[in-house]
Amino acid sequence: EDVKKQRAIKTSDPYSTEPERHPALHINNLKPFNAEPPPELLSDSFITPSAIFFKRNHLPVPQVDAASYQLHIEGLPGGVLTLSLEELKTRFPKHTITATLQCAGNRRSEMNKVKQVKGLNWGIAAISNATWGGARLRDVLLAAGYSPDVAQRAFHVQFEGLDKDVTGTTYGASIPLNKAVNEEGDVLLAYEMNGQDIPPDHGYPVRAVVPGTVGARNVKWLGKIIVSAEESSSHWQQNDYKGFAPGTDWDTVDFKSAPAIQELPIQSAITVPTDGAVVDRSSEEVTVKGYAWSGGGREVVRVDVSLDGGKTWQVAQMRSSEKGQAPGPSPPPGRAWAWKLWEVTAPLPAEAQELEIVCKAVDNSYNMQPDTVPPIWNLRGVLSNAWHRVKVEIREDDNEE
Amino acid sequence: EDVKKQRAIKTSDPYSTEPERHPALHINNLKPFNAEPPPELLSDSFITPSAIFFKRNHLPVPQVDAASYQLHIEGLPGGVLTLSLEELKTRFPKHTITATLQCAGNRRSEMNKVKQVKGLNWGIAAISNATWGGARLRDVLLAAGYSPDVAQRAFHVQFEGLDKDVTGTTYGASIPLNKAVNEEGDVLLAYEMNGQDIPPDHGYPVRAVVPGTVGARNVKWLGKIIVSAEESSSHWQQNDYKGFAPGTDWDTVDFKSAPAIQELPIQSAITVPTDGAVVDRSSEEVTVKGYAWSGGGREVVRVDVSLDGGKTWQVAQMRSSEKGQAPGPSPPPGRAWAWKLWEVTAPLPAEAQELEIVCKAVDNSYNMQPDTVPPIWNLRGVLSNAWHRVKVEIREDDNEE
Ligand SMILES: [Mo]
Ligand SMILES: [Mo]
Repeated sequence: EDVKKQRAIKTSDPYSTEPERHPALHINNLKPFNAEPPPELLSDSFITPSAIFFKRNHLPVPQVDAASYQLHIEGLPGGVLTLSLEELKTRFPKHTITATLQCAGNRRSEMNKVKQVKGLNWGIAAISNATWGGARLRDVLLAAGYSPDVAQRAFHVQFEGLDKDVTGTTYGASIPLNKAVNEEGDVLLAYEMNGQDIPPDHGYPVRAVVPGTVGARNVKWLGKIIVSAEESSSHWQQNDYKGFAPGTDWDTVDFKSAPAIQELPIQSAITVPTDGAVVDRSSEEVTVKGYAWSGGGREVVRVDVSLDGGKTWQVAQMRSSEKGQAPGPSPPPGRAWAWKLWEVTAPLPAEAQELEIVCKAVDNSYNMQPDTVPPIWNLRGVLSNAWHRVKVEIREDDNEE
Repeated sequence: EDVKKQRAIKTSDPYSTEPERHPALHINNLKPFNAEPPPELLSDSFITPSAIFFKRNHLPVPQVDAASYQLHIEGLPGGVLTLSLEELKTRFPKHTITATLQCAGNRRSEMNKVKQVKGLNWGIAAISNATWGGARLRDVLLAAGYSPDVAQRAFHVQFEGLDKDVTGTTYGASIPLNKAVNEEGDVLLAYEMNGQDIPPDHGYPVRAVVPGTVGARNVKWLGKIIVSAEESSSHWQQNDYKGFAPGTDWDTVDFKSAPAIQELPIQSAITVPTDGAVVDRSSEEVTVKGYAWSGGGREVVRVDVSLDGGKTWQVAQMRSSEKGQAPGPSPPPGRAWAWKLWEVTAPLPAEAQELEIVCKAVDNSYNMQPDTVPPIWNLRGVLSNAWHRVKVEIREDDNEE
């Protein structure tokens, strides 16, 4: 009897079949699972290992059987196209890109310090970089009957996930059609992450990878693709993941007045040292590390680092490959999908007892990060990309003469 | 004798045949001619009249005879293609776009207040909006033998002007090939400005219009187009019009370390009232006007205005057409080439004796302007896009009881 009851309870919990997770992750929410890696691990590797890649689930992880998996493509002259995983892998050339994904709520905790916002309290690590392999969405849409005249009546490509809530509502989002069909858009129906099958937390067996675009549009456990005159009608497209002015509150907000977030703005953060760290005077210098990335395929061209709260700046060294490896060829303009890691080693200022370390990045459209949080504060706590600041204490050596 | 001598002097002055200019222009430099309209005129019309459109000449205005004008297109498999003005007008469909051009040095004067920079001391009006008509560069390159395999070896399209210095060096610049050939790039070889022949100051008879891209690449008096593996070798491409960190000075600057400016970042400024204006308390409210624009075809989605130096913000009303006219259809994503004009009317704060009015804009990649000038200061004074601030005095009515 008890065993039966337990099993019944267990089966009625939609979270009973969640995958195991890496113990190093900082968990922001358990059900649905949302977690980020420790910052200092992020800047250790140019390609984030899948196990510590940030997890951002809106709903329970669905259990999808690869053998019976079907992807439906609708809204094109050819009628509905249905593809098995095998067909997706064999009918279309495999394309590989290295692309950074970032949650719209990355660094939300800094907005929470200004004034409470609604959302998971992400630190600076709701961002990661992976190599993705799969079919180009462009190729699949062409096979399903897409031709340029479709663009006269359809402007969006909607994605529906196989993850659902208790009422059966699935996760959904959409992207502009021109991003999906452009040869330079590089949107993938990915079935590989870092050279392996995509893990359950990241969308097994197939997810959308929309490089340069906010994480929320990179729909996981992809079940359906709909070419449409309309954006996705989902909650997450219409009434969430939009930016507002700092004066807008929950009484006055009109979600129709703002565009759904697609391309993200310029971003950077300091991963090492962490806020509150202590540096010994005897070490004589301090090494600062971090990441920088921009949306829309805009390449990061410079990162400035300050040790004095933003009064003076030095230019960081950047890398776009694993440490010690030569960087690959520069991406074509508008297709810089991967972040850059950066580093500065500087002498400890002689007089200082504390350092306020600050970073800010610049992309190749010369967009810069805003200086401070309050003027970009918004009720949903998204798009938090002000200069990142960490304070470090310098401890004088007691044994010093 | 005297008359002859005078004529000789006059002819040896390469600036002796400059066109007449509108008397309202604020002249920053006479030879070459550089001038901007009064800010309050800018926000009077969505389309800037050509006569007050900002003038930014690097060299004397060349006198070009339209009947004998020739445009040479080089570097493509078909060999050199030469087009007369008539051929440019008749062999290719005329395409019309409304696009804002902005000088890299717009708002440089605000950087000069922080620390002296090198360059013309532009105010906030080195930016204007016009309707341009001409052949698509894409169509002309296709006629000259461009095909996608060219993109395997060539990455740039160079422009050479017919304007030259005393040594015969012409003005030159280049843009990425993919901007030039992309169907959505909208690059024009323009022969019309606001429905008329392009005026001499703006490139008669043919100029490049590269929407979303810094003014300096929109080469006027266009003589030659070269498809090439290399960027333009011109001074203005290689050793000018690049952004650097605030700590970089003329002793340490390495022009090779920064990319040539192409797409410009998010920008906005207040045109009305002007700095130092006086508002009467009896008027009870203040109307603030301005412009907002972003590079790369990113649409401005919001402008925030503060009357208290940035502590509190309200959202401005925007328009994307002449006053009283209904706006045209929204531009397709990534092709918002025209600025928006904006306006706020707000009650005068009861206690204030002075207002610090501030504006900041947001584009549809949610890029924002930086808060302050010093952290974006650079030795060349380009890319000056911090929040714009004007101070206004409130004069209490003396006759008031
Ligand atoms: Mo997200
Ligand atoms: Mo310029």
